[in-house]
Amino acid sequence: MATTYTTKRRVEFAETDMAGIMHFSNFYRWMETVEHEFFRSLGISIHMQIDGQHVGWPRLETSCKFKRPLKFEDEATVHLIIEEITTKTITYCFKIEKEENGETLHIARGKMTTVCVTFESGTGKLTAIPIPEIIRKKIDP
Amino acid sequence: MATTYTTKRRVEFAETDMAGIMHFSNFYRWMETVEHEFFRSLGISIHMQIDGQHVGWPRLETSCKFKRPLKFEDEATVHLIIEEITTKTITYCFKIEKEENGETLHIARGKMTTVCVTFESGTGKLTAIPIPEIIRKKIDP
Amino acid sequence: MATTYTTKRRVEFAETDMAGIMHFSNFYRWMETVEHEFFRSLGISIHMQIDGQHVGWPRLETSCKFKRPLKFEDEATVHLIIEEITTKTITYCFKIEKEENGETLHIARGKMTTVCVTFESGTGKLTAIPIPEIIRKKIDP
Amino acid sequence: MATTYTTKRRVEFAETDMAGIMHFSNFYRWMETVEHEFFRSLGISIHMQIDGQHVGWPRLETSCKFKRPLKFEDEATVHLIIEEITTKTITYCFKIEKEENGETLHIARGKMTTVCVTFESGTGKLTAIPIPEIIRKKIDP
Repeated sequence: MATTYTTKRRVEFAETDMAGIMHFSNFYRWMETVEHEFFRSLGISIHMQIDGQHVGWPRLETSCKFKRPLKFEDEATVHLIIEEITTKTITYCFKIEKEENGETLHIARGKMTTVCVTFESGTGKLTAIPIPEIIRKKIDP
Repeated sequence: MATTYTTKRRVEFAETDMAGIMHFSNFYRWMETVEHEFFRSLGISIHMQIDGQHVGWPRLETSCKFKRPLKFEDEATVHLIIEEITTKTITYCFKIEKEENGETLHIARGKMTTVCVTFESGTGKLTAIPIPEIIRKKIDP
Repeated sequence: MATTYTTKRRVEFAETDMAGIMHFSNFYRWMETVEHEFFRSLGISIHMQIDGQHVGWPRLETSCKFKRPLKFEDEATVHLIIEEITTKTITYCFKIEKEENGETLHIARGKMTTVCVTFESGTGKLTAIPIPEIIRKKIDP
Repeated sequence: MATTYTTKRRVEFAETDMAGIMHFSNFYRWMETVEHEFFRSLGISIHMQIDGQHVGWPRLETSCKFKRPLKFEDEATVHLIIEEITTKTITYCFKIEKEENGETLHIARGKMTTVCVTFESGTGKLTAIPIPEIIRKKIDP
């Protein structure tokens, strides 16, 4: 069981924009990647087959407050914290920070609510389902 | 003077992910692109030189609620509405919709608060400034 | 029947990098998008179901020579030219150009060889197939 | 002095497309990121100030042959090999491979020729220059 996860990541050149900083949309990609690392760290995957069904986690709502920019080659720390689990959804909080001259700088703070679904093969129709036990028991304290 | 803008856009292949739908981070890129089209439609640019200074608009906060997915080659309508203008910031609302069988489907609703800044050349330091008159008079009713 | 297609496209902010120019990887996304517009212009799609099978076009080989950069808000012209069609593959040539002061500037030249495949549902296994007649008769002069 | 570099990288969800595989344009982003890691491993950066000038490495030509796809969460090995150094350019070769059932699968093979330039601040004009000694002595055997 785990409700937090921390990792580091470095800003790549292709993630910057002409303002010389990481494009804001990439903060969302970072959050998602850390969510997936978190799942892998628990021995599960964000894209699993359970009882013959494809289970996935589309986003219901995401948000981010940007305090300071990140630049090319900056290494940042990303903290994931589970804020709430309901029958079908998980809400994560993300804190992105950077060390500079021995100080921890607050870069951005994000939030992401995801919903557990099955994919109907063929039509691709999504149906919300209760979080499967195999996943819930790993993340629900 | 204008406080709304509407445009259309089609989902590209590279914007989809393995779930067969547009990756959620691309909704943020769409919003930004529509913000820029809006500026161009007023004869200004999101990246201008004013009085010898580079003026830009980093994001302070962005959010999006996702109601229905978009698929490859879907054509969606994006409505931009200015929700609030303060001395240094603009807050936009975005409604993303899709027509299907004569019905208007609600796809996503986003929000974006941007702040007007100058870039210090060399260091790249950003300093918030009051929205320049040349821009304000175009968007402030 | 058509073997060429021309369109225009404007550089978006998120396509630039900290060097202030369009990131080179986005030239490849542009080429692909023009390939797909070309298919749509012929009444077909790059992602079709034919005889109950998902037909797609993975890339075998792509290349691009970069002559001049594109900047934010530059509008460029992209020419697609079919260079060769074999039983299972199509090779496209792309010329990207920009008008400046009444002159046509050569920006980049790309090449892309794609192969027609079916996707085995479930495993996702790709199998090369002869280009279906419904597609071939539209593009093969 | 070094002329090769090897690293590993895992396919992220946002790098996949609706065909369920890594979008081909991301192979180019991977190659670039490995080029930059290679520079960092030598104590230099792809974006340096040398004698008060911004030195960068735009791409002259890039290409890639795709043999097998990569899927979400696949971990691949990327080998960078310097193929040629001229006065102003470096040409890299990239081999992307994946281990599966004790076998090394050939995924893709890329090539990238970059040219050393200075950026004229203000205009952003690029001028090709001989590779600075501080860089050349690290990579030229």
